Amino acid sequence: MSKTFVLAPDSFKESMTAKEVCIAMEAGIKKVYPDADFIHVPMADGGEGTVQSLIDATGGTLYSLDVTGPLGNPVTARYGIMGDQETAVIEMAEASGIHYVTQETKNPLITTTYGTGELIRACLDKGIKKIIIGIGGSATNDGGTGMAEALGVQFLDKEGNHIPRGGGYLNQLHTIDTSKIDTRLADVTMIVACDVTNPLCGETGASHVFGPQKGATPEMVKQLDQNLAHYADMVEQQLGQAVRNTPGSGAAGGLGAGLLLFTNATLQKGIDIVIEFSGLREKLKNADYVFTGEGGIDFQTQFGKTPYGVAQAAKELDKKVIAVAGYIGEGIEELYDKGIDAIFGIIPELAPLDQTLKNGPKNIERTCENIARVLKGLDQE
Amino acid sequence: MSKTFVLAPDSFKESMTAKEVCIAMEAGIKKVYPDADFIHVPMADGGEGTVQSLIDATGGTLYSLDVTGPLGNPVTARYGIMGDQETAVIEMAEASGIHYVTQETKNPLITTTYGTGELIRACLDKGIKKIIIGIGGSATNDGGTGMAEALGVQFLDKEGNHIPRGGGYLNQLHTIDTSKIDTRLADVTMIVACDVTNPLCGETGASHVFGPQKGATPEMVKQLDQNLAHYADMVEQQLGQAVRNTPGSGAAGGLGAGLLLFTNATLQKGIDIVIEFSGLREKLKNADYVFTGEGGIDFQTQFGKTPYGVAQAAKELDKKVIAVAGYIGEGIEELYDKGIDAIFGIIPELAPLDQTLKNGPKNIERTCENIARVLKGLDQE
Repeated sequence: MSKTFVLAPDSFKESMTAKEVCIAMEAGIKKVYPDADFIHVPMADGGEGTVQSLIDATGGTLYSLDVTGPLGNPVTARYGIMGDQETAVIEMAEASGIHYVTQETKNPLITTTYGTGELIRACLDKGIKKIIIGIGGSATNDGGTGMAEALGVQFLDKEGNHIPRGGGYLNQLHTIDTSKIDTRLADVTMIVACDVTNPLCGETGASHVFGPQKGATPEMVKQLDQNLAHYADMVEQQLGQAVRNTPGSGAAGGLGAGLLLFTNATLQKGIDIVIEFSGLREKLKNADYVFTGEGGIDFQTQFGKTPYGVAQAAKELDKKVIAVAGYIGEGIEELYDKGIDAIFGIIPELAPLDQTLKNGPKNIERTCENIARVLKGLDQE
Repeated sequence: MSKTFVLAPDSFKESMTAKEVCIAMEAGIKKVYPDADFIHVPMADGGEGTVQSLIDATGGTLYSLDVTGPLGNPVTARYGIMGDQETAVIEMAEASGIHYVTQETKNPLITTTYGTGELIRACLDKGIKKIIIGIGGSATNDGGTGMAEALGVQFLDKEGNHIPRGGGYLNQLHTIDTSKIDTRLADVTMIVACDVTNPLCGETGASHVFGPQKGATPEMVKQLDQNLAHYADMVEQQLGQAVRNTPGSGAAGGLGAGLLLFTNATLQKGIDIVIEFSGLREKLKNADYVFTGEGGIDFQTQFGKTPYGVAQAAKELDKKVIAVAGYIGEGIEELYDKGIDAIFGIIPELAPLDQTLKNGPKNIERTCENIARVLKGLDQE
């Protein structure tokens, strides 16, 4: 009987998009199972590649928009409208990501999420009512104030002037004026892909935990944390909302808080969002075998990475799951009991990194062909 | 029902002996099949590692002996007596190998196989009647005259003096005196592991094909080839034996010819010898699965390498064969039709070479465990 393979990998960073991984997997398996059915479900976990994968998984459309980068200069950000034409997908890093700053220019006192707000506004302009937003990889520590400003919220000082953008100026915040907020936001659902539970302020908050990797010195961390605490005070006093201790409010330099405050947002694990919107569960139903994978697999994979999420969903239906990866780290044996039946590396030799990344499709194809050869030999017994 | 795994890998050069590979394979598979039977058959193909593997495969004993190295200085050579106590295993490279010379000292005009003859003599001293000799990796181009000299054959010039050792002096050869040859040789069978078919002399002969990699300049190649031709003339005239065109006579700088001339030698493919003396075929009979492998697998594997030989033997009995390798090169798909059912790489990441070699056992174990997980999942369906 003809077999059905569901191919649900993440992207292999710097090597292949998730869709390209699907294509390579099919090419390998098809050599062994020429009559099989292949269902491609390009996956992501809410991090980098989420827009591309959800577009690819649903037959959506990718758009580009020039927005304000984290340092104020213009950057080109991609975002997507999914195949249903109703759901947009944004990655905050496309507008406000850490990759836009250098060792020299990184400064979380001044970086802003304004561009992320512009991306949201572009979706509103398209009549979108549901926006998935991945918030990993931020360069910012502004509590999402930049994002809110782009959507009409005004952050004013004692004299009624706009305070400068960036978390370093939030100590000047005196008045939050939401009277001019984009009214279309009221009808829009924001689904925030957020895998961290850090609060906005304090020792486990945005500034202390994530500030240093964005360039904050110990002094800056202290200042940024105080500023976010002041921001939280103002929010409580003027908007009557308490978010400083909400799990996830500290994500992306407090963009989590900003989204909760100024939009109809719910925070969910990224992989759960992608599983839902890719229709993975429905597609798994007919699977004989499920193939997944990611650039790297190790003990951290169980903390919300795609192969783990796919395995969990597949396990509900008692499906066999095989994973491939370019890098296999410590602790993968923990994954065996959690739904990943087997894990194989794809690297054929110690070659230079650029060559190895370039040969990704070939290595996926060869490895999956050989896994299929083992499966097939046994199917025939 | 309890499964039987036959583990028949070659060594992974610079990382693991074949026996160590067997142990790592079992460790991995056993996690999935705790009640399985494991039959270890450490393999080799007549090249480096053949002594170690045949000793390990048969429960033999390894010996060391100081002999004359290729440049005349003493070197320590290992050799083995197999578990049957009747068969010795020698690698010529242990006594006369290319690894004993450097870029500066390599000179096939003077390198000698004398030490290889000393190794054979040591076996005779132990009463051995059957000697397997691997002749790869030689530094020599002396037609096996050094080896013969160590066993009592005298190579004399016009004045009746011994000519100096080394292929560069064979032009002085006037008389081959076999009157003092070790008489014990008459009762000894030499089984020569030889995968090349090159003749002693000429364009495809020892000097032209293998001389350059031993340090011969174009002028030296010409001289060495002329000298071997003169040697062949003397042999024909004085011993009545014609070996110059015998396939394999040009192996190991003409040691192939020397062994054919002065001992009861037969040349066979190395892998065939190891298959025979390891008892592989008998051990394969009860196998459910056969695991093999080698440091590298590519299109050349089909030309007498261990995984190919094991697969051929296994195919006669219709057994499933799975191979693992550290390096997977081009053309492995040619092996699928030749008895290797699937091939997997073991490298988990682009790490430094020394670390990768050191982690060989761990990588074999993990890979075989995962292969077994695929097998097991299917066994249970």
